[in-house]
Amino acid sequence: MTRIKIKELLATPPTGQTVTAKGWVRTFRNNQFIALNDGSTIQNIQAVVDFTTTDESILKRLTTGACISVTGELIPSPAKGQTCEIKVTTLEILGDCDAEQYPLQPKKHSLEFLREKAHLRARTNTFSAVMRVRHAMAFAVHKFFNDRGFSYIHTPIITGSDAEGAGAMFRVTTLDAQNPPRDENGKINYKEDFFGRETNLTVSGQLEGETYALALGDIYTFGPTFRAENSNTTRHLAEFWMIEPEMAFYDINDNMKLAQAFLQYLVRYALDNCGEDLEFLNKRAQEEEQAKPQDQRSELGLLDRLKFVAENDFQHLSYTEAIDILKNSTPNKKKKFQYLIHEWGVDLQSEHERFLVEKHFKKPVILYNYPANIKAFYMRQNEDGKTVAAMDVLFPGIGEIIGGSQREERYERLLNRIHELNLPEEELWWYLELRKFGSAPHAGFGLGFERLILFVTGMTNIRDVIAYPRFPGNAAF
Amino acid sequence: MTRIKIKELLATPPTGQTVTAKGWVRTFRNNQFIALNDGSTIQNIQAVVDFTTTDESILKRLTTGACISVTGELIPSPAKGQTCEIKVTTLEILGDCDAEQYPLQPKKHSLEFLREKAHLRARTNTFSAVMRVRHAMAFAVHKFFNDRGFSYIHTPIITGSDAEGAGAMFRVTTLDAQNPPRDENGKINYKEDFFGRETNLTVSGQLEGETYALALGDIYTFGPTFRAENSNTTRHLAEFWMIEPEMAFYDINDNMKLAQAFLQYLVRYALDNCGEDLEFLNKRAQEEEQAKPQDQRSELGLLDRLKFVAENDFQHLSYTEAIDILKNSTPNKKKKFQYLIHEWGVDLQSEHERFLVEKHFKKPVILYNYPANIKAFYMRQNEDGKTVAAMDVLFPGIGEIIGGSQREERYERLLNRIHELNLPEEELWWYLELRKFGSAPHAGFGLGFERLILFVTGMTNIRDVIAYPRFPGNAAF
Repeated sequence: MTRIKIKELLATPPTGQTVTAKGWVRTFRNNQFIALNDGSTIQNIQAVVDFTTTDESILKRLTTGACISVTGELIPSPAKGQTCEIKVTTLEILGDCDAEQYPLQPKKHSLEFLREKAHLRARTNTFSAVMRVRHAMAFAVHKFFNDRGFSYIHTPIITGSDAEGAGAMFRVTTLDAQNPPRDENGKINYKEDFFGRETNLTVSGQLEGETYALALGDIYTFGPTFRAENSNTTRHLAEFWMIEPEMAFYDINDNMKLAQAFLQYLVRYALDNCGEDLEFLNKRAQEEEQAKPQDQRSELGLLDRLKFVAENDFQHLSYTEAIDILKNSTPNKKKKFQYLIHEWGVDLQSEHERFLVEKHFKKPVILYNYPANIKAFYMRQNEDGKTVAAMDVLFPGIGEIIGGSQREERYERLLNRIHELNLPEEELWWYLELRKFGSAPHAGFGLGFERLILFVTGMTNIRDVIAYPRFPGNAAF
Repeated sequence: MTRIKIKELLATPPTGQTVTAKGWVRTFRNNQFIALNDGSTIQNIQAVVDFTTTDESILKRLTTGACISVTGELIPSPAKGQTCEIKVTTLEILGDCDAEQYPLQPKKHSLEFLREKAHLRARTNTFSAVMRVRHAMAFAVHKFFNDRGFSYIHTPIITGSDAEGAGAMFRVTTLDAQNPPRDENGKINYKEDFFGRETNLTVSGQLEGETYALALGDIYTFGPTFRAENSNTTRHLAEFWMIEPEMAFYDINDNMKLAQAFLQYLVRYALDNCGEDLEFLNKRAQEEEQAKPQDQRSELGLLDRLKFVAENDFQHLSYTEAIDILKNSTPNKKKKFQYLIHEWGVDLQSEHERFLVEKHFKKPVILYNYPANIKAFYMRQNEDGKTVAAMDVLFPGIGEIIGGSQREERYERLLNRIHELNLPEEELWWYLELRKFGSAPHAGFGLGFERLILFVTGMTNIRDVIAYPRFPGNAAF
């Protein structure tokens, strides 16, 4: 018998046909009702065994976590909430699961506990739902760009360049750590390292992405990026996945439009394709909310939040306008902000972003035209002489989900900025050459994939939306 | 005017409507004919300027590589091989390109030369075609698995485990290389490293992938993998992308079927979606072939090779059968093989694989049931006591394109093998637990993405099918 996935079985009209399902026992009740799950859906199928004819020794092995194969008739189910069930005629234990030793008991475990069992946690409802949604979001990313004629570029992971300065980097090396080769001054001789130079893990594929945008037009990256920062927060990982589209002939306005269209497409895709998983996660988030004090609860539930974002335009707001709003806001006047806003030019903290998004506008906000001094060297200088064509998309509960800009396409301006910031011009020769040979206006942005998954699943700790999270002190599995 | 991509313009019936195109000048002939390319297609659009009314200083700036915007009427083209052209009314130079300095001249450059100009090479026909095909293949990978209910899992890049033993690894560290912390014995104290232990770049996501297959059923990975091997060949990279599906309830036969279906789907997708690029690459490969001595030329051209693979079943052959064929083969008897085949148990070299694929069967071959001693510890032990349920898919011109196996799902057998090979049992505790808690038969394989791209594009050096190749001594850009 060919095994059929449970997702498919549950969508099949039951007419007594003989079917085979394989999966893991979630629960076994009354010595006859098996709730069987194979990961294809959050739903279990009920498999009913006849305990009068089944060997006692087999029944005893139907413990939570055991892997089994069942064959039997697919019939309408008398039980509530399920259309069909399997009346088992043949049952085979594929893999036992010692109930005494198995870490996942048929009860609710804390997320902290499950993080220690990362090799098993996808067998729980919560994590299987999160990981299926994560898959759907990754596919939607590729589909969105493919449908629009973008090319997916794999920018390098190991890089000899550390010019972007987006954060602390991990060194990649094959030198003998114990006794590395040194030059006559006693310095490490990286010429003897694998790549003949010092190399690091990438913090962003943007600069290399730009080289392809100025050849193929519209491109995107989707790959792992790294930050060697000692951030033990619910929003940071040392290894995370980022999506970075880069478009020739786009200005900052085109860029903002694409960012909104992209995020709305992704959220809509989740609503259209992950219904059952989102229903489950919605309930889960509701329960979490109810455990919070009244004043800390969200106004909207997960599903409502997703629908709201999919259907409403984002608020566009210049940095200068934002500063005005913040300066005159109640929390600023009453000194409730940790960092009070006194003047134009300061960087915004997450408390300010949250105020704008969650209290003032109550919708996603795109902030643009930031002061040049708080943004990266490659952003396009505006004619006012003090701002750059940067943009950040801010989401409720998440904060910055997208950061981007129009890029400086003018050779002299870019070179001046590199000099002003004392960046290594010689390392950026190829990046500068893009502005020398057929330069074009262009723009792009970066989406932190795990932040998107946090938003779409309603999970609150970034370590719970990636299979094996990496953070300070942890590279287990 | 909204810019329209050239791919779309070329597919639009020309009725004299006003359109805007932006792109890079490939050539400018007779002071009037611009061949304009924007990367959306390998085809250029012809833009015709009226040199009698256009400023001389502008005409002089229409050099190869210059970036321009043209607006004008889209009209039927009198020229051969193009349906429409733009009769330019407005021309704007977006970015000049000094013909004296620009490395890409309107002539054929060697691939070696272009590797040094990796930031510009996607502006050539060959590399833009390769990179568009690469994009199409990446999308097809995701579509194939998504359509079949597989979940995409991002397995970790930084890993504390080096148990798989697939090859030499790169160390990832934030310790001060110059003066690292040491313990009382003078050894490097990795407890003070970022992750509190020694960490490396992954060589494979398979083991972590298995943990998700035994939860979600069918999963796949698609991510970068690394080998710190000093291989300066046309087939090896230090950083490359790999696709690793892993399926619960699959045996070795299911695995072989999926591998064939997958490869045929990808090749068919390329034929159906990359027609123009493949036509160009086909011609390119033909020219390369003609430069070779007669006896080294391929029997089939690129397109014929792709069609052949898409339409014909692969040859299944056990290792034991392969040894018999090789032992009795002419090159073995005439001692033409560098490594002569005397007895069962030896590892096959690429010369043997090529003989089987290119001379004996003249089709892709799936070799299976290899001797346990030449394969990895996790492969399922066959009942003969000497072979394992391994499989390699061998392609003409490429050699091994897929390697996989059914995995050992029996706890005791796996543990014994780990002991026999002196592998670190304590590091594999979580992998072993999969066999303790609801173990299931399962199987999977790995496809080297760049090898696939070599096959589909007809390129011959793996450094030419990835944006920024990493190999010993090279991490430029």
